[in-house]
Amino acid sequence: MKILLPDTAPLHPALPEGWEAVTVDARAGIPPAHHDADVLVVWGASRRHLASAAEHLAGLRLVQSLAAGVDGILAAGFDEDVVIATGAGLHSRTVSEHTLALLLSLVRRLPESREAQQRHEWSSEIGGLQPLHPEGRLTTLLGARVLIWGFGQIGQTLAPVLAALGAEVRGAARSAGTRAGFEVIAEEDVLAELPEVDVLIDILPASAHTAGAVGEEVLAALPDHALLVNVGRGATVDQEALRAALEAGTLGGAALDVTEPEPLPQDDPLWDAPRLLITPHSAGGRPVGADERIARNLRALAAGEELLHVAAR
Amino acid sequence: MKILLPDTAPLHPALPEGWEAVTVDARAGIPPAHHDADVLVVWGASRRHLASAAEHLAGLRLVQSLAAGVDGILAAGFDEDVVIATGAGLHSRTVSEHTLALLLSLVRRLPESREAQQRHEWSSEIGGLQPLHPEGRLTTLLGARVLIWGFGQIGQTLAPVLAALGAEVRGAARSAGTRAGFEVIAEEDVLAELPEVDVLIDILPASAHTAGAVGEEVLAALPDHALLVNVGRGATVDQEALRAALEAGTLGGAALDVTEPEPLPQDDPLWDAPRLLITPHSAGGRPVGADERIARNLRALAAGEELLHVAAR
Repeated sequence: MKILLPDTAPLHPALPEGWEAVTVDARAGIPPAHHDADVLVVWGASRRHLASAAEHLAGLRLVQSLAAGVDGILAAGFDEDVVIATGAGLHSRTVSEHTLALLLSLVRRLPESREAQQRHEWSSEIGGLQPLHPEGRLTTLLGARVLIWGFGQIGQTLAPVLAALGAEVRGAARSAGTRAGFEVIAEEDVLAELPEVDVLIDILPASAHTAGAVGEEVLAALPDHALLVNVGRGATVDQEALRAALEAGTLGGAALDVTEPEPLPQDDPLWDAPRLLITPHSAGGRPVGADERIARNLRALAAGEELLHVAAR
Repeated sequence: MKILLPDTAPLHPALPEGWEAVTVDARAGIPPAHHDADVLVVWGASRRHLASAAEHLAGLRLVQSLAAGVDGILAAGFDEDVVIATGAGLHSRTVSEHTLALLLSLVRRLPESREAQQRHEWSSEIGGLQPLHPEGRLTTLLGARVLIWGFGQIGQTLAPVLAALGAEVRGAARSAGTRAGFEVIAEEDVLAELPEVDVLIDILPASAHTAGAVGEEVLAALPDHALLVNVGRGATVDQEALRAALEAGTLGGAALDVTEPEPLPQDDPLWDAPRLLITPHSAGGRPVGADERIARNLRALAAGEELLHVAAR
């Protein structure tokens, strides 16, 4: 039995008896010598790589992604009976950390401080004695009402850290309930809740259902001081509507680690929108626990047991 | 009995029977009509205000500061029998939050991302697929070894949040032991530990003992990738030595919320040091729970009981 590993990450999974691992170029087609592979691990693969795998790996049983989102794999045309497993959870800690970095940077006015520093200016507008909750501005997470839209592994890792910092945290997902100790509201109730939200964190996956979810209507429903952070997928935000809200002053600030398209074209007006931070898809990009996940799902596959995080087809 | 409240914060403490509260200008001398005050609350007071209080309030029993550091009050010349109580704890949550904002901004390369954004550049140096622990650079708190020097209320509030983000956190204080569940090393052992420290967080108070504590020797002992964050007092860092280390590349980066002096003069070369963030003493500046603390200590004073957080004279 053969498993193909990508050359884009240092991987050394423990293999069951009788398995052979081969490292392949994740940006190129699958070499004919390896068209007999049973399992393909995907990380940073090109479309060409995925299309070649879908076309040539006739005995393929499992595509194990190391990414949380598998929209690219789902679109590549693999046979219906090939199991696609996501890398859900492998990025929870790194993406949570980055989300917190972006949010705290906005809340604690670090970009403005940086600009004042570049002018050699000790700004009494920013520092010194300040009200805890100034009118029309969010300057601390203490008491801040945070809604995490898309409350999966990443959201559930982030939520307790935000709560420890004093925020009131809720999730939003397809169905309402309590998850990981946090109240989760149903998607259809999001719009009605937004006037009472200070921070909206978008961790939605890309799908026809989520495209443009954060659009004009959502942005208008948020208070003018609200902050938006998107670490989900770029296509879930209507970037034109976001830019308009920032320019009109009807949104307090925003941070995007993902855009549509990526890279964001050099002439896109979004780069210069006021009170907007853009990072170049740097939240995740480094799976934590990949070897263990691959080994875990290989064992399950070999034993005919249930795999972790199988994507709905 | 009379308590003088500063006009620099919105204060409404509950008063014991028979007490009167008067709000006074914290930047001016104490008006003669209030030289009979029993208690003075200090927040954002000028030197003149403190000197006037020390000279004229003959029946003064308590100076209740709302600040964590009381070096200014201790230097103002109050009689030995006047109790000075600090605002320890009132800034733990806000200063922790700001410390985390500064540290995550350095770790997650937000200043570099911001500069790339200003150039309309989607930087593949920063985003995309990256190693989890690149050689010679700290890019996540996962597994990062953090030492918090000055492990009081603020440090003990910050430590569990850093631990939740995956850091290995220890404190350093006058005496070794375990505090709030974290290992604390003794000050005299700090130098020997620094080669194994990725992040040094300075929350030291100002005193003759701590002046220049983070100087050439400490900076040289830290690994070249290490990060320094100072939210204690400016005088605890030798700013010349810090600038030299940043320019020589023997320190990964630094963030200062406090400097010596404050404001930092416009022509100070520190403003332009590489990989340095400066915020204008904006970590605290907004006491949380001040009314409750004042009421608590007034009740204790009236009842002849022990006050909270009395400063050593």
